Amino acid sequence: MRIAYQGEPGAYSEAAALRFRPSADLLPCETFEAVFAAVEQGRATHGILPIENSSHGTIHGNYDLLLKHELPIVGEVKQPIVHNLLALDGTTREQLRRVFSHPQGLGQCQRFLRTLDVELVPTYDTAGSAKLIRDGGLRDTGAIASERAAEVFGLSVLEAGVQDFADNTTRFLLVGRDQTPLGPADKTTIVFTVTNDAGALFKALSVFALRDIDLTKLESRPIPERPFEFLFYADLTASRDDLPFARALMHLAEFAPLLRTLGSYPRWEEPETE
Amino acid sequence: MRIAYQGEPGAYSEAAALRFRPSADLLPCETFEAVFAAVEQGRATHGILPIENSSHGTIHGNYDLLLKHELPIVGEVKQPIVHNLLALDGTTREQLRRVFSHPQGLGQCQRFLRTLDVELVPTYDTAGSAKLIRDGGLRDTGAIASERAAEVFGLSVLEAGVQDFADNTTRFLLVGRDQTPLGPADKTTIVFTVTNDAGALFKALSVFALRDIDLTKLESRPIPERPFEFLFYADLTASRDDLPFARALMHLAEFAPLLRTLGSYPRWEEPETE
Repeated sequence: MRIAYQGEPGAYSEAAALRFRPSADLLPCETFEAVFAAVEQGRATHGILPIENSSHGTIHGNYDLLLKHELPIVGEVKQPIVHNLLALDGTTREQLRRVFSHPQGLGQCQRFLRTLDVELVPTYDTAGSAKLIRDGGLRDTGAIASERAAEVFGLSVLEAGVQDFADNTTRFLLVGRDQTPLGPADKTTIVFTVTNDAGALFKALSVFALRDIDLTKLESRPIPERPFEFLFYADLTASRDDLPFARALMHLAEFAPLLRTLGSYPRWEEPETE
Repeated sequence: MRIAYQGEPGAYSEAAALRFRPSADLLPCETFEAVFAAVEQGRATHGILPIENSSHGTIHGNYDLLLKHELPIVGEVKQPIVHNLLALDGTTREQLRRVFSHPQGLGQCQRFLRTLDVELVPTYDTAGSAKLIRDGGLRDTGAIASERAAEVFGLSVLEAGVQDFADNTTRFLLVGRDQTPLGPADKTTIVFTVTNDAGALFKALSVFALRDIDLTKLESRPIPERPFEFLFYADLTASRDDLPFARALMHLAEFAPLLRTLGSYPRWEEPETE
């Protein structure tokens, strides 16, 4: 198993990949597009993507990529996120003029960052921000990133646990080259469109509700060429092999202009603590 | 009528405000929070907020602000967005090393920007990016902004109409100090939560579908203190004064833990071209 992830070593995606399989080989990539390309071209067997953060919401662009590429979702994992303020050894909080991080990292630490008198600079990656500070020897700059990023890039932790909400968690999806799920599937993600008729979305959801299949997430994304029309992404608590679910999808296909299954996979369960 | 908007003169929000009322007084503000504060403190009668772009999706943070503040939505307007690459007079495309714009501006011009060999720098505002270039005399920097921003800040248009999709439109909401809509209301925005039971969202939508009230938008936002629970924002084609709609809301209130009407207002109709 070789998992491609976006970011530098020390990125939260790296930690999430290791939660799936501590022995996995890892392949850092610059962008999410590059993660998909690595799997498509065979340089990795799987790719990992953050899809939703408990306090900052959905990472919408990754839904767009799941639709654009044909790689199936084969697993999910929830990764606790502990953000820290990092800087070069010897830098004090008062010396900081700028803080680097991924926009999600900056967004998840707004309360803490408002207590600093600094410019917030969005970058491509949390751990990559630590790398920029190390590479540039930037004495006036901090980064919001993981403790592991501090170790990897030799920075100090000026303040630990600076996220706005203690219980900050990101859900990641694992995509694979073939659609073998990581274990027995009990969750399925689909994407569909509805017609412009009144009650069309209600009708779409009825195919699941009438069969007692629970919807755990519903997300809409614009269709760029068709202003104010939407794609709906839905997570359902069933495997694609369950007969009632297969019937629900056939029912939906009767009237949905577009319907695709993005993957059927085992829902993440927290490992038992020993 | 005095409308507060986020950004510098030349921002798309300014153009949207003038579509409502060409004679309105305008008050530029640094942040969306400041727009709400200006209305709450009486320095403006109304505030304008971008809520959704046809190609780049919802501006989620503004839904959070509508819930946090108590200002009702009293109108909506759709504003066509034409992005341009601006720079100081005499700067050529080849000299550009960086391009400034609001993240939405950069996101809506991805195809064009990939053809340039530049660093993309997110800023607080499209027109504000033009101002930064003028103020700093930055010869190596371009901005993605409106043609009016070029006029206001004395820049040249290096390339016009660089957005990815020709039909790029942003929908704006107008909030007011009192809830008098700008005309006869035929659209209402609500926010609600559902319990964790199977089919709960379906049940919530049924109160409208069973009364032939159409849902034109549904958006979910995380509740930060409650990981992976959601607020739902819905647009419905009815006025709060319509009896079936009032009954639907009472029906929803029977089982929704939270339900609030954010405003009832006239749906935007394109003006007839002469």
